[in-house]
Amino acid sequence: MPIEPINPPPRLLMGPGPINADPRVLRAMSAALVGQYDPAMTTYMNETMELYRAVFRTENDATLIIDGTGRAGIEAAMVSILAPGDVVLIPIFGRFGELLREIAERCQADVRIIRRQWGTVFTPAEIEAALVEHTPKLLAIVHGDTSTTLAQPLEELGALAAKHGALLYVDTTASLGGNTFELDAWGIDVVTSGLQKCLAGPSGSSPISLSAKAVAVINSRKSVEAGLRSDGDPVSATPIRSNYFDLSQILDYWGPKRLNHHTEATSMLYAAHECARLIVNEGIDNAVRRHRTHGDAMVAGLAGMELTLFGDQSVRMNNVVGVYIPDGIDGDGARRAMLDDYGIEIGTSFGPLAGRVWRIGTMGYNARRDAVLTTLAALEQVLRRGGVAVTAGSGVGAALDSYE
Amino acid sequence: MPIEPINPPPRLLMGPGPINADPRVLRAMSAALVGQYDPAMTTYMNETMELYRAVFRTENDATLIIDGTGRAGIEAAMVSILAPGDVVLIPIFGRFGELLREIAERCQADVRIIRRQWGTVFTPAEIEAALVEHTPKLLAIVHGDTSTTLAQPLEELGALAAKHGALLYVDTTASLGGNTFELDAWGIDVVTSGLQKCLAGPSGSSPISLSAKAVAVINSRKSVEAGLRSDGDPVSATPIRSNYFDLSQILDYWGPKRLNHHTEATSMLYAAHECARLIVNEGIDNAVRRHRTHGDAMVAGLAGMELTLFGDQSVRMNNVVGVYIPDGIDGDGARRAMLDDYGIEIGTSFGPLAGRVWRIGTMGYNARRDAVLTTLAALEQVLRRGGVAVTAGSGVGAALDSYE
Repeated sequence: MPIEPINPPPRLLMGPGPINADPRVLRAMSAALVGQYDPAMTTYMNETMELYRAVFRTENDATLIIDGTGRAGIEAAMVSILAPGDVVLIPIFGRFGELLREIAERCQADVRIIRRQWGTVFTPAEIEAALVEHTPKLLAIVHGDTSTTLAQPLEELGALAAKHGALLYVDTTASLGGNTFELDAWGIDVVTSGLQKCLAGPSGSSPISLSAKAVAVINSRKSVEAGLRSDGDPVSATPIRSNYFDLSQILDYWGPKRLNHHTEATSMLYAAHECARLIVNEGIDNAVRRHRTHGDAMVAGLAGMELTLFGDQSVRMNNVVGVYIPDGIDGDGARRAMLDDYGIEIGTSFGPLAGRVWRIGTMGYNARRDAVLTTLAALEQVLRRGGVAVTAGSGVGAALDSYE
Repeated sequence: MPIEPINPPPRLLMGPGPINADPRVLRAMSAALVGQYDPAMTTYMNETMELYRAVFRTENDATLIIDGTGRAGIEAAMVSILAPGDVVLIPIFGRFGELLREIAERCQADVRIIRRQWGTVFTPAEIEAALVEHTPKLLAIVHGDTSTTLAQPLEELGALAAKHGALLYVDTTASLGGNTFELDAWGIDVVTSGLQKCLAGPSGSSPISLSAKAVAVINSRKSVEAGLRSDGDPVSATPIRSNYFDLSQILDYWGPKRLNHHTEATSMLYAAHECARLIVNEGIDNAVRRHRTHGDAMVAGLAGMELTLFGDQSVRMNNVVGVYIPDGIDGDGARRAMLDDYGIEIGTSFGPLAGRVWRIGTMGYNARRDAVLTTLAALEQVLRRGGVAVTAGSGVGAALDSYE
């Protein structure tokens, strides 16, 4: 039987991401390609840099995109900074902290971790104590860890890292655009992100920004690529152990030298450009406020149905909430009913929360009133069919109250 | 000044790639997203595997796509197979052979190279002699190296590699779909490719296929990721030094386990799916024939204008030709005139050919009669304006003759 063209079923993606992309982003991807060094292409690259400076709130020259998913950005940051044996401190409060650890281990860094129980975050004092104990080259932490739905407060970490001689790297894949983030004001040296959460795009492109201090560390490890190398070119004692993720090379491709690296993934660049353009036009503060409004409404609706929320609500991300699966309900069966009967996806959980907690997102294009109310209305029906005594209209009613 | 939406100028991309994507591929990318484990998504992943088995001419189960450009596929193959100190033999006949070397060096492999002058390829005997001398774990070679426009004959290399105990890896980024390629029949263990050449897509996704033998080598290095690891899980003595490119993990994501790795780049998967679907529907042999027909017409046209071709024409790729820049012509000025006055991009060259040779492609969506004839017509005008005595109609005439 011949394989048919892609024709996805209609879905309202209300899980922890990816979510429905903004149709304008999808349309941007269908724009015609141009050559790798076409003036139009280098203009789009420069505009993308400018737009992500606004999104990250930074003046960093070195602001660009990595051609891969959010995880690719993490690996590019880590492998470009961490040489084997370098000490990295990773405070872990969820699954994606474990991912940072995993990637740092692959870099053969000397990985020191501190852990917080899922559902909590670190105090600055806890992190400072670990900085004092481990004196790392790099402090690496996730901003919003969707596995627990919590956001680590970052305001003080840049100053702490600097005080103790460390660079600060933050992964904002799940948080950027939906939660306040201030790269320069918070003294962050490296940040990476992804498109598929609050930025309303598809996964496959990872925005990144690097402070001058971070660029200096990376460039100290620079080796010009075999095939482009000249006799006078530097050869590092601790060369970066990836070519694709070698930020020193990628910066030369995005910078005035335009030194050939991989062929930029043009359609994904178009997507990243449009994601940033839309949120910059909306205003970053407005976008964060929108995520808070609709996230709060979803939370109010879930609480209105007398469901129990997971984790420290004082540090919940605006764009995703964890809720305990009610007793007697088959969590995966209910998710399947949401998908099959209503076309709505809500999320399962990892590790210690698997089978106990659903994660429900309100982010990017889906941080919308109709998406919130439709999800709550469908969930009420599914819970009732599953035998939970839900007061009719309690979820939607509480959400509507929250909006007022 | 606000940044406007992406609105690329019309371009006919007749360089060595990327080229204009097929509009059907661009449209596929604008399809709505679905969740990472949506039944529709896993179906598309499985279909993509099936389609690329047909494209690569293989029965390999382990046939999938890497979320990154062609270079990402190369790095995934290398870093997953080559542990530090492993011997890899790389016959280099152009710039992309140097790239294989570069990436193998980053893996800390023991890299042995043999070189051929640009414009020539290796004989099987030369490669066998090097296999005997170096007894590598891996023989790694480029199929079609666009830097020289030549294709290395591969038919005998699989048997030679097997005879001498090596795996054979081939990079087909620039050749696949436009030149005969037979993974199983030629005994190739690992192949990677890209979408942006003969497959008529955008860069940003790298199809890959692995023989059972290659999978066994990769899985012998398997480490389950921190955060997903259980006590009984294996820990390798030579762990793969990348997480994003760890094929042992990516295979578990694409296989029946569906073990979480990075979120698949959905829109790029849609593109890869459509690229393969179109060429499978056309018939791989028909597609190769189409590339040969239009490539031959372009070559005839260039020769008809009394331009001199570069390199051993008996092993030229079907989809790209190198031509010496005529005396007295400013190569970059002429390329700029082609772009500015006709909207047509032709390619410059790297390294020893920079400033001496243009590279002109006829591939993917642009392996078409009108693309060939329009390019020749424009080039005639540009050459004449540049002072070259070109017989009017000589290029187009020769191309038309070639079609007949």
